[in-house]
Amino acid sequence: MTLDGAETPALVLDVARFDRNVARLKAHLAHLGVGFRPHVKTAKSIDVARRLFAGDLGPITVSTIAEAEYFAAAGATDVVYAVGLAPKKIARIRALVAQGVDVAVLIDTVEQAQALATTARDGGAMPAVLIEIDCDGHRGGLSPDSATIIEIADILRAGAVEVRGVLTHAGESYACRGGVGLVEAAEGERAAAVAAAMALRRHGHAAPVVSVGSTPTAHFARDLDGVTEVRAGVFMFFDLVMHGIGVCAVDDIAVSVLATVIGHKLEKGWILIDAGWMALSRDRGTQRHPVDQGYGLVCDVDGVPWPDLIVDDASQEHGIIKVRPGSAAALPDLPVGARVRILPNHACATAAQHGAYQVVTTGSRDVVAAWPRMRGW
Amino acid sequence: MTLDGAETPALVLDVARFDRNVARLKAHLAHLGVGFRPHVKTAKSIDVARRLFAGDLGPITVSTIAEAEYFAAAGATDVVYAVGLAPKKIARIRALVAQGVDVAVLIDTVEQAQALATTARDGGAMPAVLIEIDCDGHRGGLSPDSATIIEIADILRAGAVEVRGVLTHAGESYACRGGVGLVEAAEGERAAAVAAAMALRRHGHAAPVVSVGSTPTAHFARDLDGVTEVRAGVFMFFDLVMHGIGVCAVDDIAVSVLATVIGHKLEKGWILIDAGWMALSRDRGTQRHPVDQGYGLVCDVDGVPWPDLIVDDASQEHGIIKVRPGSAAALPDLPVGARVRILPNHACATAAQHGAYQVVTTGSRDVVAAWPRMRGW
Repeated sequence: MTLDGAETPALVLDVARFDRNVARLKAHLAHLGVGFRPHVKTAKSIDVARRLFAGDLGPITVSTIAEAEYFAAAGATDVVYAVGLAPKKIARIRALVAQGVDVAVLIDTVEQAQALATTARDGGAMPAVLIEIDCDGHRGGLSPDSATIIEIADILRAGAVEVRGVLTHAGESYACRGGVGLVEAAEGERAAAVAAAMALRRHGHAAPVVSVGSTPTAHFARDLDGVTEVRAGVFMFFDLVMHGIGVCAVDDIAVSVLATVIGHKLEKGWILIDAGWMALSRDRGTQRHPVDQGYGLVCDVDGVPWPDLIVDDASQEHGIIKVRPGSAAALPDLPVGARVRILPNHACATAAQHGAYQVVTTGSRDVVAAWPRMRGW
Repeated sequence: MTLDGAETPALVLDVARFDRNVARLKAHLAHLGVGFRPHVKTAKSIDVARRLFAGDLGPITVSTIAEAEYFAAAGATDVVYAVGLAPKKIARIRALVAQGVDVAVLIDTVEQAQALATTARDGGAMPAVLIEIDCDGHRGGLSPDSATIIEIADILRAGAVEVRGVLTHAGESYACRGGVGLVEAAEGERAAAVAAAMALRRHGHAAPVVSVGSTPTAHFARDLDGVTEVRAGVFMFFDLVMHGIGVCAVDDIAVSVLATVIGHKLEKGWILIDAGWMALSRDRGTQRHPVDQGYGLVCDVDGVPWPDLIVDDASQEHGIIKVRPGSAAALPDLPVGARVRILPNHACATAAQHGAYQVVTTGSRDVVAAWPRMRGW
């Protein structure tokens, strides 16, 4: 099969770009001398994860228990579940640990620590715990100087639950543009995590793991002294948000949505395609960027972008392509039946709309494989 | 199982509200003396569709070929595929027609008509055709006075392809607020479709079908003289966008996302939950409404909204609940592990993030069924 014959809309993965993106971050982290724990929430695919590790599945980060179960069934044995723990989810995690999977969970409240300690009383398998640290006010986590960190660790130790260390995520790095501020965000992320780990150690907790990461800070960190591992997810595919933040070139974006032209409104400068928000996602992550990419940047079937051509609006199964407002670029002549590829604002959100990747390599229209994706919780 | 024990996040369907919504629109359309062809792209579920018809599947509208195939396999025999036809999709549609399913496709270009006529030359099964009419400049379709309508119909007739009539969709009705302008939008939709059908009839095409519809116009039409059928989809579930447009009350919204509290940042007035955009969708359809509902309105586990409590921000698997800016409402005391239900901006988009409905009825936490949803193209 080729991209000319595939059903549309479809999610296309260019493995040559993927490999280049993965090699770039791996080399940077190797240079910094720090471990790597990629976040597989972006890929949600065993085939992608195997390619990420060039073989057996290494340490991974997941965002749902279903991901942990799915990747464990494929051989993953070292999993961090990096979303704050709902106590009712402990039972499913224990089942994984009982199967021999090393799972670490994330908490930032006394209630969660108590729930874990209470559960552990029956002597059954238990996950290790990372305490969530807030490095930039983005979401959850405790301030590195919060006394609650120690309180949580003490509750866990008293309950014979392993306190493995700390984890933070510089989510506010997504507010940076054009690379400005990312070195500082990376240093802030490192410093917060290390300070929290030092506080734990002063109170007798070994805290061997100091985990940081976001795709922007992972690429811009100059020094990760005290950090043991870096997490990142979208780096493997990249997207227009990462381009706007200044982390990648448009040419690095490895995923796109293949679509077919189904009509025109030439008096309005519109080309209609069969990819709407169901295929592209509703993500408008570049809406407040200096360059608003609409619902995505339009390329030809070989993945080469047309100047200033974007998906300007989307219904469930319709996309409206037009030239970016203010641009002098011409609307290309794309007859009914012509094929295009749309680069996404947010690879995680767009990929999540699809059940599989149609795998190609740069410069070829041959679909060499279809790699399924998992879903759900 | 009950909503207190279900895995979170999960999509909840209140069938009592669903039944009430369906009965309301059916009664209105019966009063207007017009046929009904519900759009099953919102539900994507055989179980929901069967309840919609109280038995065997009646006439339906679909947005993808995969929906047509899925509902046909469950017994649907009368299907309109209401997205402009990509010529490469004709083969899959012919296969359905050959199985005895009456399928009508939608076109608005000479190229699509020629592709259909050329395909028909082999004498195989062919779908009927509806010509897409533009009633409000929203998306695709031909102006009712366009000569292309007749040109298309003549090409189809010469190719022995059935010209069944016209179809239009008042998508711009979504720009109305508080009910204002909807009666006029409904009349504009009716008038455009009927004018196009009359033009076809003047040129010797019977055009027996005159199909209109959007959820707002379907409810506000006062007179549908000349129209043969009405399409609507989101009416069965309703959502906050429909509430803002003025079509439903908040109390009519039949779908919600069940979530669990996983943390707090009380100094910021935040409650964190385990439902992010993966569970809620990225749809921000109320962003430009007078009342911006964020990523959704927060209810207790029984579906009763708290005053002015919304999901203000969302990451992939995290939602941040806070009181709407400017409101004097208090943040409710929701400890870690507490459960909430989020009413969605856009039911079609939120439901599409889930693999099944957890079915309840108003006032009960008992999950009486799990109804699977289909996906893909």
